[in-house]
Amino acid sequence: MAEWLFDLFDEGPMIKQEFKRIPRHIGVIPDGNRRWAVSNGMDKSEGYHYGLSPGFKLYELCVELGIQELTLYGFTVDNTKRPTVQKKAFQKACVDAVKELANRDAELLVVGNTESPNFPVELLPYTRRVKFGDGKIKVNFLVNYGWEWDLKQKDGPASKDISRIDLIIRWGGRRRLSGFLPIQSVYADIFVLEELWPDFQTAHFYRALEWYQSQDITLGG
Amino acid sequence: MAEWLFDLFDEGPMIKQEFKRIPRHIGVIPDGNRRWAVSNGMDKSEGYHYGLSPGFKLYELCVELGIQELTLYGFTVDNTKRPTVQKKAFQKACVDAVKELANRDAELLVVGNTESPNFPVELLPYTRRVKFGDGKIKVNFLVNYGWEWDLKQKDGPASKDISRIDLIIRWGGRRRLSGFLPIQSVYADIFVLEELWPDFQTAHFYRALEWYQSQDITLGG
Repeated sequence: MAEWLFDLFDEGPMIKQEFKRIPRHIGVIPDGNRRWAVSNGMDKSEGYHYGLSPGFKLYELCVELGIQELTLYGFTVDNTKRPTVQKKAFQKACVDAVKELANRDAELLVVGNTESPNFPVELLPYTRRVKFGDGKIKVNFLVNYGWEWDLKQKDGPASKDISRIDLIIRWGGRRRLSGFLPIQSVYADIFVLEELWPDFQTAHFYRALEWYQSQDITLGG
Repeated sequence: MAEWLFDLFDEGPMIKQEFKRIPRHIGVIPDGNRRWAVSNGMDKSEGYHYGLSPGFKLYELCVELGIQELTLYGFTVDNTKRPTVQKKAFQKACVDAVKELANRDAELLVVGNTESPNFPVELLPYTRRVKFGDGKIKVNFLVNYGWEWDLKQKDGPASKDISRIDLIIRWGGRRRLSGFLPIQSVYADIFVLEELWPDFQTAHFYRALEWYQSQDITLGG
């Protein structure tokens, strides 16, 4: 197990919560890595590495609760305009995440523009869904994703194998979608946490789920 | 002036606020008409009528502040599955709103699926932008709008004459887009008010603008 995963259980035993209504598909916008790095005296680019462990904590919680599908916003075409040192750092973080996920149970699909040098070649094998271990949960990972790129494909959206999202959880306080899967997000309930992504705690996730179960489902009706 | 407009100035003189950054284009999701009606001892269908006056209050404030474009969510294809009495009520409210707007200054564009009996024929002339009075502000009105319908057109989105939205304000407490212009909303900051739309107050709008000016603009970068 990678060293950065040792803190997976650092919050001690959790009292498991019961939820009467669990989302089928959760989308995650893990924002705030750079702000977290700066506020911890690091270079902005160093923040992304600290976003890996939270991702796996969240993954474990989703498997435990029986969430069927989880979509994570890796990085976007827009993001690649950032300084090279940052770009390399978030690309590496995405590759590291997939390497680690390969040791778990998941059905992984990476969605993003592969016709660009910004797409990490190590992730090309996963642009068709690949099963790791016992599967258990669909994990979609947006890597060099762009909403315009997604929607302008000839045979329907590039993200057509990603289903409608029930709940979007965004860390880092911004109340917006930032180009995250426009079609799958049309009816999603959106929960924003002020806390920065590297400061992830299980309690944040439970807070989002508690809020979600109090929402009605209308699908626009 | 229609009777329901008499309360336009019922809040007395406002102290005008200065904003250092004003959105160019505001989207509005005026939710909560039915809940408001029920909580005021009325039939659900009666709520829509009470959503008209708030719309004009908001319009006046936007003109005053120099907002360039305002998009209002009238009703959707999904909404037309509701009971007929409700459907007729929100259709009528949309027609009444346009009749009244015709006496003001605006460049009106109605966007929605006209190839359906649910689209009010009275609004057909406005599916191309029409100038009322001195123009001053672009007003887009979504009537029998559907996000799938919007995106599946051959020559680009049906809503292609509606520009990118900077700020979406939703009344009624739901934290979701409910199919509202998926493409124009990709980078929008989303502000949700717990208050129901017929309880609109100028202060709600100012609260949204105050929050908006504290947000950074990244356009996904």
